[in-house]
Amino acid sequence: MKLSHIVLAASIVSCTPPKTPPAPASAPVSVEQGSEQRARLRDLGITLGSLPTGKYNAITDVPGVRVGHVTHNWGFGKLIPGKGPARTGVTVILPTSDDFWHSKVPAASFILNGNGEMTGLHYVKEFGYLETPIVFTDTHGIGAAFDGGVRYMQQRFDGIGKDEAPTTPLVGECDDGWLNDMRGLHVTAADVMKAAERASDGPVQEGAVGGGTGMMCYGFKCGIGTSSRVLPDKAGGYIVGAIVQSNFGTRPELRINGVPVGEEIKDLLPEEAYHTDGSLLVVVATNAPLTSRQLERVTRRVSLGVARTGTISHNGSGDLFVAFATGNRIPGQPTELTHPLRELADERIDPIFQATVESVEEAILNSLTMATTTRGRDDHVAHAIPLDRLRAIMRRYGR
Amino acid sequence: MKLSHIVLAASIVSCTPPKTPPAPASAPVSVEQGSEQRARLRDLGITLGSLPTGKYNAITDVPGVRVGHVTHNWGFGKLIPGKGPARTGVTVILPTSDDFWHSKVPAASFILNGNGEMTGLHYVKEFGYLETPIVFTDTHGIGAAFDGGVRYMQQRFDGIGKDEAPTTPLVGECDDGWLNDMRGLHVTAADVMKAAERASDGPVQEGAVGGGTGMMCYGFKCGIGTSSRVLPDKAGGYIVGAIVQSNFGTRPELRINGVPVGEEIKDLLPEEAYHTDGSLLVVVATNAPLTSRQLERVTRRVSLGVARTGTISHNGSGDLFVAFATGNRIPGQPTELTHPLRELADERIDPIFQATVESVEEAILNSLTMATTTRGRDDHVAHAIPLDRLRAIMRRYGR
Amino acid sequence: MKLSHIVLAASIVSCTPPKTPPAPASAPVSVEQGSEQRARLRDLGITLGSLPTGKYNAITDVPGVRVGHVTHNWGFGKLIPGKGPARTGVTVILPTSDDFWHSKVPAASFILNGNGEMTGLHYVKEFGYLETPIVFTDTHGIGAAFDGGVRYMQQRFDGIGKDEAPTTPLVGECDDGWLNDMRGLHVTAADVMKAAERASDGPVQEGAVGGGTGMMCYGFKCGIGTSSRVLPDKAGGYIVGAIVQSNFGTRPELRINGVPVGEEIKDLLPEEAYHTDGSLLVVVATNAPLTSRQLERVTRRVSLGVARTGTISHNGSGDLFVAFATGNRIPGQPTELTHPLRELADERIDPIFQATVESVEEAILNSLTMATTTRGRDDHVAHAIPLDRLRAIMRRYGR
Amino acid sequence: MKLSHIVLAASIVSCTPPKTPPAPASAPVSVEQGSEQRARLRDLGITLGSLPTGKYNAITDVPGVRVGHVTHNWGFGKLIPGKGPARTGVTVILPTSDDFWHSKVPAASFILNGNGEMTGLHYVKEFGYLETPIVFTDTHGIGAAFDGGVRYMQQRFDGIGKDEAPTTPLVGECDDGWLNDMRGLHVTAADVMKAAERASDGPVQEGAVGGGTGMMCYGFKCGIGTSSRVLPDKAGGYIVGAIVQSNFGTRPELRINGVPVGEEIKDLLPEEAYHTDGSLLVVVATNAPLTSRQLERVTRRVSLGVARTGTISHNGSGDLFVAFATGNRIPGQPTELTHPLRELADERIDPIFQATVESVEEAILNSLTMATTTRGRDDHVAHAIPLDRLRAIMRRYGR
Repeated sequence: MKLSHIVLAASIVSCTPPKTPPAPASAPVSVEQGSEQRARLRDLGITLGSLPTGKYNAITDVPGVRVGHVTHNWGFGKLIPGKGPARTGVTVILPTSDDFWHSKVPAASFILNGNGEMTGLHYVKEFGYLETPIVFTDTHGIGAAFDGGVRYMQQRFDGIGKDEAPTTPLVGECDDGWLNDMRGLHVTAADVMKAAERASDGPVQEGAVGGGTGMMCYGFKCGIGTSSRVLPDKAGGYIVGAIVQSNFGTRPELRINGVPVGEEIKDLLPEEAYHTDGSLLVVVATNAPLTSRQLERVTRRVSLGVARTGTISHNGSGDLFVAFATGNRIPGQPTELTHPLRELADERIDPIFQATVESVEEAILNSLTMATTTRGRDDHVAHAIPLDRLRAIMRRYGR
Repeated sequence: MKLSHIVLAASIVSCTPPKTPPAPASAPVSVEQGSEQRARLRDLGITLGSLPTGKYNAITDVPGVRVGHVTHNWGFGKLIPGKGPARTGVTVILPTSDDFWHSKVPAASFILNGNGEMTGLHYVKEFGYLETPIVFTDTHGIGAAFDGGVRYMQQRFDGIGKDEAPTTPLVGECDDGWLNDMRGLHVTAADVMKAAERASDGPVQEGAVGGGTGMMCYGFKCGIGTSSRVLPDKAGGYIVGAIVQSNFGTRPELRINGVPVGEEIKDLLPEEAYHTDGSLLVVVATNAPLTSRQLERVTRRVSLGVARTGTISHNGSGDLFVAFATGNRIPGQPTELTHPLRELADERIDPIFQATVESVEEAILNSLTMATTTRGRDDHVAHAIPLDRLRAIMRRYGR
Repeated sequence: MKLSHIVLAASIVSCTPPKTPPAPASAPVSVEQGSEQRARLRDLGITLGSLPTGKYNAITDVPGVRVGHVTHNWGFGKLIPGKGPARTGVTVILPTSDDFWHSKVPAASFILNGNGEMTGLHYVKEFGYLETPIVFTDTHGIGAAFDGGVRYMQQRFDGIGKDEAPTTPLVGECDDGWLNDMRGLHVTAADVMKAAERASDGPVQEGAVGGGTGMMCYGFKCGIGTSSRVLPDKAGGYIVGAIVQSNFGTRPELRINGVPVGEEIKDLLPEEAYHTDGSLLVVVATNAPLTSRQLERVTRRVSLGVARTGTISHNGSGDLFVAFATGNRIPGQPTELTHPLRELADERIDPIFQATVESVEEAILNSLTMATTTRGRDDHVAHAIPLDRLRAIMRRYGR
Repeated sequence: MKLSHIVLAASIVSCTPPKTPPAPASAPVSVEQGSEQRARLRDLGITLGSLPTGKYNAITDVPGVRVGHVTHNWGFGKLIPGKGPARTGVTVILPTSDDFWHSKVPAASFILNGNGEMTGLHYVKEFGYLETPIVFTDTHGIGAAFDGGVRYMQQRFDGIGKDEAPTTPLVGECDDGWLNDMRGLHVTAADVMKAAERASDGPVQEGAVGGGTGMMCYGFKCGIGTSSRVLPDKAGGYIVGAIVQSNFGTRPELRINGVPVGEEIKDLLPEEAYHTDGSLLVVVATNAPLTSRQLERVTRRVSLGVARTGTISHNGSGDLFVAFATGNRIPGQPTELTHPLRELADERIDPIFQATVESVEEAILNSLTMATTTRGRDDHVAHAIPLDRLRAIMRRYGR
C-alpha cells in the first residue's frame, strides 16, 4: 500500500474555539482519534472508470471553483447539550473566483431522497442559475449557516437587500448527531464567513473536516471527498469535478469498484445505538457550456455514481445533488433585453454524464478512505476503514 | 362604510426592542403611520364566493391551528443598515395544538414562481407530512428564523437531534427591503420562539403585523391576511382556512371580486424607486382527511385564488404555497409496521378546491384592506388602500 | 332564442365521412344545431387586458405557426357505439412552416390537473424542445391520432425510425363522450395527416370544429378558441398567441372580464346526466427568444389566465398546457459540439407573462362565444351562450 | 460460437402473421437466429443481493399480476419499410387478476431520462393509481398499442367512454429500429388485445419476445427480463417483482454483480452503424400496502438497480419507470365520502427499496442472458452474450 503521507488530526482541523470555552476534555485524545495513515483511493491503486482526473483530482480542477472549511472538533465524553463534544463544521464551495452575484452560473438540482434540507433550491430551479456560495454543514446548523451566507454576501456586495435583491444561499446538511452535540448549535454565521474567505483552489482537505467532521458512511467514518475528470479534446476537453459530504449507507452494502468490501469487513461497526439515518450532499461543477436543463440531467446521473458504491438510498438519507457550469455566465443586472448562451449539443453530452458518474463515485470513496477514526459524543466511535485490509480484499477479487 | 373599529398602530404591533436601542426616531410618527380606519373585506360588504366562512373567517377556524406574531416596527428616516428603520417581524403558524412532532399531519407544497425561499419543503415532499411550525419572515431573516424554529423544537422536544432525528422547520420569506432595513438582520431566533409561544386560536391580527410588517401588494401596503370556508354537511362539513403574507403585484392588475379596482385608483403609488419584486406566501389548512397527494392538488388551486386578485405572478415574485390537513395523523415513531389513513374520495374533492380558491382570494384581500399606511426606510411610504374609495368603485361596477 | 342570422353548420365543419357510412340520421337536423350567429369576444365589445392583439387575434399571428382541423359531425339520436352520432375531430398545430424536425423549437409544459393525457411530454421535458405537430382530439382518439402523427412525420421525413430517431408526437385530449360516440373511435390516423396538410396561417376556425366539435365548458357548448397579443417595441415587439380546446367548468363559476356571467344565466344547462368532467388543452406560442426553462414559467402562467374565467380546475378536468418559442432553433442533427441560444432576460419577461394570461383568457372565451349549439348522442344538447344576453349582462356590470 | 444445445425459436416466439403476408424470406434462418442455449442469471450460478426470490423469480410472483406477449418475428434481409423484416411485438402487464378499473391500485412513476414515451403517466401522477394495462412496445407502435389498450378496456368494461370516464392506458416504448422495420408499423391494436387475453401468472417468457423482440442492451441482444424478491416476515413478508424491456447501454459499461464483464468481452459487437440510443422500461409491482407517494420513492430506487449493471443513462436512452402496489385498492366509483388506506411506515420501507434494487438489477440481466442472437433488418446482427465466457469471467473475478 502506497501511503504518501501521514495526516495528523491537527493538520486537517482548524479548531474554532466556542465563545464559552468548552469544558476541559474529560479524556485525553484517544489513539483512535484522527491519527491513522490515510490515503486517497488512487493512492491505494484503485482506479475507477476510464476518464483521466484533473491535476488535483478535485472539484477545484474546474477553473475558479474554491473550497474552504471550518472545523469544530473539541470536547470528549458524555454529551452535555451546549457543552459538546463538538464534531461538526462547515464546508463552503464558491462557484467562481470572480463576481458570481452579478455574473451568475447555470445550475440545477435533483433530490434522490428528500430526507434532508438544502436551502435556496427553489430559486435555482426557477432561474436556472446559482449566485451564492454553497455550504455543507449539520442539520441544526442550517439557520446559522444561512445567516452566515447572507452576511458574507452582504459584506461582499453592498447593494444586496437594499438597492439590489436579497439573497438566499444554498445551505445543505447531514445529521451528525451520533458523534456531535448537534443540539449545542455550535455552527455559527462567522464560520461560514471565515470558510468562504479561506476558500482556495488547489488541493482540497478531505475526510473528517469542515461539514464532514461528524459524518459517517457505510458504518465507517466518512466526511468530505472530492474527485474530477477531464474529457477528451474531441468531447470539448471540459473538466467535471464533484465534492461530497457523505453520511449514508449500511456496511453490507459497501462496494468499491464492484467488489463487495462491506461483506468482507464485518467488524469495526458502530455500536448498536447507531441509526442509519444519514444523508449525502453532492455538488458537481464543470466548465462546459451547459444550460440549467442539461445540468438537471447531470444531477440525475449523480444517483448512478452513488449507486455504484452500493447504497439503496435509505429512507433516512437525505440525498440532495446540485450541479453548476461556469461555461455560461448570466448577467445579474442585465442592460440588454437578451443575452447569449452556448449550449453543448445533447447528442454530445454523454462524456459529461460519464465524468459525473465516475467523479461522484470516487469522491464518495475518497471521503471514506481519507477519513480518520473519530470518537465523539458519549464515546461513540466511528472507525476509519482499514486501508491494508481494503487492499487485500481488492486483490482477492481480481483487482 | 361600516367600520366597526379603529385600530391604532400600537394595538397591532408588539414592538420588540433591539438589543442595541435604535437611534432616536429622526422624525415624529407620521400621520400616515398605522392610524387609519381599517376593515376586513366582508365588513366592507364585499362577499367572495358562495361558501360560508368559519367563525373567525381565519385559518384558526381549523381546529388546533394557531397563529402568533412578533413585530419589529421602530426607527424612522434614512436607512442606516443595522440601525433601522425596522419594519419586519415573524408570523408563526402551528399546525395543531398538540404534539405535531410525534403525530404528524399530511402536507404538500406547490411553487407558482420560485423567486423565493421556503425551507423544509424537500422533506415535506418526500414524506408527505409536516412536523414543525411554519414561519413567515423577511428574506434575510430566514437564517435566524430557522435557528429559532430549531430552538423552539429542541426546547419543546427533548430528544430532537440527540436520540431522535433533527428537524428542519418551514421558514418562508418575502422581500421587505423597500420599507425595512433588511441588511440590519433584525429578525432573531428568539422572535420565532416568542411568536410560537404566543400562538393562539381565535381571531388573527392582520395587515402590517408580524412577517407582514414591511410587505406591500398591488402598490398598496399589505401584509398578513386570513380567511376560511366551511363545507356543506354533505361534503363532509370540513373547514378550510388560508393565511397569507402578501407582497406582490402591480397596481393596474388589482381586481376585487372581478372589479378592476387597480385601474380606478391610479394615485397613492409608491415612488419610482419601488421595484415590483415581491412574493406571496400562502398556507392552507383543513381538517379534512386528505393525503399528501391530494394536498398537492390543493396547493395547485392556490394559484387560481391568487389569479382572481389580478396578478400575473411577476418574475420577481416568489409565490410559494403549502397545505396541510389535520384529518389524518401519522405516527412519528411508529411501533407498527403499517398505519391507517382515511382518504377523501377524489370524486368528492371539488368543494375543498372551491374553499381553497375562495379563502385564498379573500385572505389576500384582507391583507390589503387591513394594512395601515406605513412610512419606512428613507421615508418610503406604502399607502393603505382607501376604503371609502374602494366601496364607491365596487358600487359603480354593480356590486 | 333569438337568432338574427344563420350560419350553416357546413361552413364551419368539414365532414369526413366514415368508412362505414353512418346510419341515416334518426332525426332531422335540429334548429339548435350549429345555426346561430356567433361572434368573437372582441366583436361583442368585450376587451380583455391592456396589450394589443395581433392581426388575426390568433396563435397564427406568431410567424410560421399553422393550424388545421378535421371534423366528424354526423349522425343523430340514440347512441349506438360504432355507429355514432359522431361529434369529434382533430385539430393540428404545426409549430413552424419550415422543417421543425431538423430545426427544433424550445418548448415546455405544465399540468394544472393531470386528469388527462398529452403524449410526448416526457421528451419535451428532457430536451426542452418540440419537433412534432401538436394534436388536439378526444380521449379515445389518442391512439389513432398518435399513429397519424407518426405517419405524417414518416411521410414528411424519410429517415425517421430508420436512419434517424423515431418520433413521439404530442397528442392531447378532452372527453367529448357526452355528445360524441367516443367508443366508436371515429378519429383516424388519416384525419391527423389531412389536418396537418390543411394547416395554414391566417384566421383560425373556432368553436365546434376539429378537436373541439364535441366539447363543452361552463355548461355551454365550447370547443376551439384562439387569441394573441403583441408586446411593445421596448419589450421586444414579440408576439404571443394561444389556442385552446376547452371542455371544463361549471356554470356558476363562469366569469367574463370579472363579471359573474355564470350566476346570471342559470338556464340553458345540460340535463342532469351531464358530468362536469372535462379538460382543457392550451398551447401558447411566441416568437420571443425564450429557453425551455422560461417556457415552463410561461406554462405556469396559463393557470392564471384560465382562473380569470372562473374555474377552480375541477377534479375531473385534465388541464394540460404546452408552450413553444420560435425565437431559438436547435439543430436536430448537430455537426458542431455546441450551438448558440439567445435568452430573454428574466427581468424583462413580465410582458410575456402578461400576454400569456391575456391571450389564454381570451382564447377560452372565444371558444365559448364562437361555439354553436350542438345536439349530440342520445339527443344531449349543449347550448351556445346567448350573445345578446351576454351583452346585456356586461352592460349591467358597468362594462 | 459454441452451441451445445438448441432451443427452437418457435418455443419462445409466437409469430403473428401480418395481414399482408410478408415477402418470402430473402435468406434462410441464420444459425444465429434464436437457437442458442440460454439461461437465467441464477441458473448460471450468479446470485445478486441478499433477499430470496419468489417462486418463479418473476413479477408474476406478486399475486394477481399477469404478463402476456405477442411477437412479430418474420422476414429477413434488406429493409423495405412496410414489408419487414419485423422484429417487434407487445408485452402486456395486467396489475391484478380482478377488476382493476373499478378497484384501482396505487401507482407512481419516475423518469431517469425522458428520451422516450410512456402514455398515461400524467393521470397516474394526479390520482396516484393505475387502472389500465401497461404495455411495452416499439416507439412507432405506441399509437396502435394505445388504441389496443382502449379497445381492450372498452370490450371488458361496457361503460367506459359512455357512462363512465374514458381511459388512457400506459403504453411505453423503446426504439428497435436497428433490427426492426419500425416504419412498417407492424404492431396492431389487436396485438394488445391478444396479449392481454393471453396474460397469465406463472413463469414469464424472457429475452427476444413480445415488446423485447428487437431490443438490445450493452451491445448484446436483450429484451424482456423479470425477477422478484420476498421480504422477511418481520418486514411484512411482502413480494416485490420487476419486469423490464431493456434496450440501452454500451458494451464497456456492462457490469454483472460488480464484475466488469463489458471490458472483458470486446467482440460480438454490433457493426458500426449501431447507434447507442436505446431505452429502458421498468415496471415494479408489490403486494405491500404502499401509497402512491411511497411508490414514487420506489421508482426513484429503480435507478440504483439500473446503475449496478453499469450504464450512465445515456442521452439517447428513455429510462421510464413505473411502480404499483396491490396492497391498497381504491374504489373507482366511490359511494362513500372517504375510503380507508393502509400505509407501510416509511421507517420500515428500506426492505422494499432493497428488493426493488435487487430485482431490477436481476431482471435486466435476465433480459440479457435469456435473449437469443437475432439477425434483423439489413442483416444487422445482435449477438447474445456467450454464457460460457460469462461464467469464466465471473470465476476469474472471484465469484
